[in-house]
Amino acid sequence: MADALKVGVAGLGTVGASVVRLLAKHGDTIARKSGRALEIVAVCARDRARDRGVDLSDMTWFSDATEMAKTADIDILVELIGGDSGPAENCVRAALARGVHVVTANKALLARHGVSLAVLAEENNVCLNYEAAVAGGIPIVKTLRESMSGNEISRVYGILNGTCNYILTRMESDGISFEDCLADAQRLGYAESDPTFDIEGNDTAHKLAILTSLAFGTKISDDSIYLEGITSITTADIQAADELGYRIKLLGVAQRTETGIEQRVHPTMVPKSSAIARIDGVLNAVAVDGDFVGEIVLVGPGAGGDATASSVVGDLADIARGDQTPVLAMPAVDLTDYTRARMRLHEGGYYMRLSVNDRPGAFAEIARCMADAGISLESIVQRRNVRLAGDSEEGAPQPVILVTYETTEVAVKEALEMVLSKGVVADKPQMIRIEKLT
Amino acid sequence: MADALKVGVAGLGTVGASVVRLLAKHGDTIARKSGRALEIVAVCARDRARDRGVDLSDMTWFSDATEMAKTADIDILVELIGGDSGPAENCVRAALARGVHVVTANKALLARHGVSLAVLAEENNVCLNYEAAVAGGIPIVKTLRESMSGNEISRVYGILNGTCNYILTRMESDGISFEDCLADAQRLGYAESDPTFDIEGNDTAHKLAILTSLAFGTKISDDSIYLEGITSITTADIQAADELGYRIKLLGVAQRTETGIEQRVHPTMVPKSSAIARIDGVLNAVAVDGDFVGEIVLVGPGAGGDATASSVVGDLADIARGDQTPVLAMPAVDLTDYTRARMRLHEGGYYMRLSVNDRPGAFAEIARCMADAGISLESIVQRRNVRLAGDSEEGAPQPVILVTYETTEVAVKEALEMVLSKGVVADKPQMIRIEKLT
Repeated sequence: MADALKVGVAGLGTVGASVVRLLAKHGDTIARKSGRALEIVAVCARDRARDRGVDLSDMTWFSDATEMAKTADIDILVELIGGDSGPAENCVRAALARGVHVVTANKALLARHGVSLAVLAEENNVCLNYEAAVAGGIPIVKTLRESMSGNEISRVYGILNGTCNYILTRMESDGISFEDCLADAQRLGYAESDPTFDIEGNDTAHKLAILTSLAFGTKISDDSIYLEGITSITTADIQAADELGYRIKLLGVAQRTETGIEQRVHPTMVPKSSAIARIDGVLNAVAVDGDFVGEIVLVGPGAGGDATASSVVGDLADIARGDQTPVLAMPAVDLTDYTRARMRLHEGGYYMRLSVNDRPGAFAEIARCMADAGISLESIVQRRNVRLAGDSEEGAPQPVILVTYETTEVAVKEALEMVLSKGVVADKPQMIRIEKLT
Repeated sequence: MADALKVGVAGLGTVGASVVRLLAKHGDTIARKSGRALEIVAVCARDRARDRGVDLSDMTWFSDATEMAKTADIDILVELIGGDSGPAENCVRAALARGVHVVTANKALLARHGVSLAVLAEENNVCLNYEAAVAGGIPIVKTLRESMSGNEISRVYGILNGTCNYILTRMESDGISFEDCLADAQRLGYAESDPTFDIEGNDTAHKLAILTSLAFGTKISDDSIYLEGITSITTADIQAADELGYRIKLLGVAQRTETGIEQRVHPTMVPKSSAIARIDGVLNAVAVDGDFVGEIVLVGPGAGGDATASSVVGDLADIARGDQTPVLAMPAVDLTDYTRARMRLHEGGYYMRLSVNDRPGAFAEIARCMADAGISLESIVQRRNVRLAGDSEEGAPQPVILVTYETTEVAVKEALEMVLSKGVVADKPQMIRIEKLT
């Protein structure tokens, strides 16, 4: 067997400690499979004293990741620091420039600098592997970069953030509010103390930006993603969706359209019968439509130290085996420019929930606005709030749910502006896109 | 770019024609991705005149696959003939022995000769890739051989035969008999005119034998698989399962137990809430439990010319990229012997449907037999058949459904033998294993 590959691990949080533990436990088997051993010889973390439950005594400690990338005697750098700039970016660039392979779980870094890092890796003839950056333990990067390379891809979409999916699942199963679910998720460790990045959809957007490039052979364009988080979703929406035969999921969707490639992250109503509707809790799922293979769906844990470490080590084993794949599925010089589709032309069904002032003719006015915008309605649910005996709340706003047939976002926004201008609704209307899925 | 890799395709049925079409359509993109073009220079099929909808004019024709493997100027042989011996085996062996890479979709060949073919490929330092042999378009071979190589696997299971899944799905959704569903499946082209191989579970067993070796690092042992097909399943079973919260699927399951590795193919009751229960129609699904990653589930088309061609071309692209993976995940010399678990000790819940003679004390006798065999019952459903007014069929057999708590197959068989010996049942009892899945 050839000499062991020397690995340096930058960042010893949950994932880093799991990687060390995995290699200690299964290193021999991995070496037999890939023909070369992997040996962690250097580590970098701020706190040397912390007990991480793994033996780090044989490794050289660095307090600066870039210093390690530049000077340590390593063949592979594993970057688990996180962040789209600073130490993470610096150590990755330093390693690649020096001809050291890189394995990373850093979606933010790749979404922002993926193309220039790919160029750097390819100039230096080294691997840049990042299975763990998208959907944790699910092998979606390899599936797109390798298995599906014979397909032209029309769409890739998925549930890419476990925190949001946990919250939406709990809101439905337990009928509790977004705020209460979020608090529970934080208590259980499924959400950060500052959850903004997850619940506003940014984390999903980073992963989607990477998937888009892999699927369509375009340069990464994370700042052209339409972005909407889950904070406006109420239990009323979840219930209405349920009654209409849908569930609400935060999806990242990238698809080829006539005007370019559409990338969007937003709460989506998906048919209960679809595979994606049935992904509950912290699981992730990614679906890819290829012209030859049809639709492939991959489901698994999207986060967690051990699941993420499984992907990191899969990437390491590829390098040990000598497998070198273009970073973004094709050589970076061959990636085409990203042309953004006109999102406002996005065609589909739409769900609207209006809080309608209870006065004569209000509903007729709403119907008029929809018709004037050229929107056909598939269903209308107007359910008078139950009034108790002696209740004098006549005139209180009533919820009205509208579901449209296929139309454009332009038309829906125009209709809602008209409705607002007529003063027939009490609150800002809710609008959720409906996705046609199988 | 390096010279094109020359490919010879043996077998030009549905899959072969799709492979030719795929490379004609997407060959340029694949070449850019893998750094080397793939050129089909030779083909082999019996009927030269048949119109396959693809241009074969530039290719050298062979009427004998082994002749092609031995003499054609090719770097890769694609074997799409099928069968576990004869021309398929001969041409694959000839190619490997000559240092020609092989890509095949032939599950029967691999289940029977996988280990000796792996030895031959490794001795000659060439690839033997077979993504298309298991679950069609689903990248499960790559996931096990590469992505999950850092995991110790405890179980792999799945729906691996689209014909059976179509039949079971239709039996449930339309309430029609096995025979009628099979006839429909044949009419729609989902089942062969001789469907034995599919409905008796042999096809599933071949795929499972390959997955077992990949998952556990053992030599392939396809003749030690417990095998039971779907022909005994009735609409009464499907309905009873539905009422008890289960669906019936033909599963292939391989799992590590204390006594060895258990491989079994049989109709299985799976909880409706499990991911696998929701795989309908001709789709396939494979789930793998790894100690680090947790459970990964892959879903997609398990058959069809284009989906299978997608996997064949993925394998070709790996070879073009220079990626060489041990055939059975680790070098063939390192595979351990397969130790068969004692199936009769298989622990789990069991479903039994008995046709009980309607006479006093019959049910008490059955309950006694269960108790004597040490079996605890989770539920008992005895539903008297509806009798029309004037119906004089008193004494006609009544269906009784029993569901056990966790027990062993030995105990269940012992109990059923006792029940039979007492003459309280009118027919052979039905027994279906219940699988604990999430």
